[in-house]
Amino acid sequence: MLNGVRALVFDVFGTVVDWRSGVARESARLLARHAGGTFDAARFADAWRSLYSPAMEEVRSGRRPFTRLDVLHRENLAGALRQFGIDPLSVPAPDLDELNLAWHRLDPWPGAIQALARLKERYIIAPLSNGNIILMIDIAKRAGLPWDAILGAEVVRAYKPMPEAYLRTADVLAMRPDEVCLVAAHNSDLAAARRCGLRTAFVARPMEHGPGQTTDLAAEQDWDVVAADFEGLANCVI
Amino acid sequence: MLNGVRALVFDVFGTVVDWRSGVARESARLLARHAGGTFDAARFADAWRSLYSPAMEEVRSGRRPFTRLDVLHRENLAGALRQFGIDPLSVPAPDLDELNLAWHRLDPWPGAIQALARLKERYIIAPLSNGNIILMIDIAKRAGLPWDAILGAEVVRAYKPMPEAYLRTADVLAMRPDEVCLVAAHNSDLAAARRCGLRTAFVARPMEHGPGQTTDLAAEQDWDVVAADFEGLANCVI
Repeated sequence: MLNGVRALVFDVFGTVVDWRSGVARESARLLARHAGGTFDAARFADAWRSLYSPAMEEVRSGRRPFTRLDVLHRENLAGALRQFGIDPLSVPAPDLDELNLAWHRLDPWPGAIQALARLKERYIIAPLSNGNIILMIDIAKRAGLPWDAILGAEVVRAYKPMPEAYLRTADVLAMRPDEVCLVAAHNSDLAAARRCGLRTAFVARPMEHGPGQTTDLAAEQDWDVVAADFEGLANCVI
Repeated sequence: MLNGVRALVFDVFGTVVDWRSGVARESARLLARHAGGTFDAARFADAWRSLYSPAMEEVRSGRRPFTRLDVLHRENLAGALRQFGIDPLSVPAPDLDELNLAWHRLDPWPGAIQALARLKERYIIAPLSNGNIILMIDIAKRAGLPWDAILGAEVVRAYKPMPEAYLRTADVLAMRPDEVCLVAAHNSDLAAARRCGLRTAFVARPMEHGPGQTTDLAAEQDWDVVAADFEGLANCVI
């Protein structure tokens, strides 16, 4: 079903790694003494993440020059802290810098590494994430993700779901768009990739947003591949 | 001697892989029937390579927008063929396209893979080559080079030895220049990196240009590391 595809490119946050648990873990570790007794670290992760798309939208709209995600995350952290009643100025800046690295220390979903190793034998595999290069390197190196290259927003200087993010990625791979397949847990990302001519693989991640998740529980279009997890993806396309 | 260094970035053509033997092998395979009986494939590789720096200079000077090396190699191939009395128009274009992939099929110098695997345990390792992204991916995937990322000219849109090639690479790594060390077999590349504040490691490759090589046989400055090969480099810096 992926005839002619030579590269699989992956959304990372939510698709390959569990950002919510990882950010919650690091937030609990670093913010406990600054927060009140009832600090809900998972909700803090949600609050921080909710500022992600609006910050990128400033770049996508052209109101702001391309700015890497580590910088946006660091700025958004102040807003998230305020939502939880913590004055960002009351926390030492080195602690905030350290907390920002929470995004560099995310764990893959179970089985992801093994499936990527299998997929790598047949395809070029690389992230196509809005995360910046060193962020992707640090996640991969800590977790053992066997990427062939680090692609994504910072390489092509465009944030998904702008068409340039997908089309320039195919271009640096010297492939036609239909020789590249995006793997993602998000229907909107796949829809944008499909509009650019890429092939599409949906992998369900029903716990990305925790037990109450209501979005992206199932495929919303007839994606080229629909799989329950990365092992299922590998079984389909190898 | 590399205290504080967190990333090793590598020149590739000549330093990691033996371009001359590889290009000669593929040229002999694909050009034998088009050339006369005395086709010297190693000299053809030299001729093709000699057009590399002048072509990049068009980009470095600003006379031409950034153009990836695969495209420059393909253009230069016509010139090299003419030097050998072969009319480029007499060779089917698919054969020339295939020959251009010679640069994607280069073998590492003996011991390079093993040393890179050791270095990877301690450092982020990535190419900082003028070769473009898919060129570096293909070499690495075929040979088993265990890079953490593919960096280099196409990522930073600047050809070495322009300062931007080194400084933007440190920037995407979110490191100060002195936290990055360039490994190269070429004194001029190291000199340019040092001027940008990077650390420097020279590895001798006295056969890069064949048995008659006269350049880069030894370190010409007091580079931070000077090694006879990659195993020696790893022994020095781990």
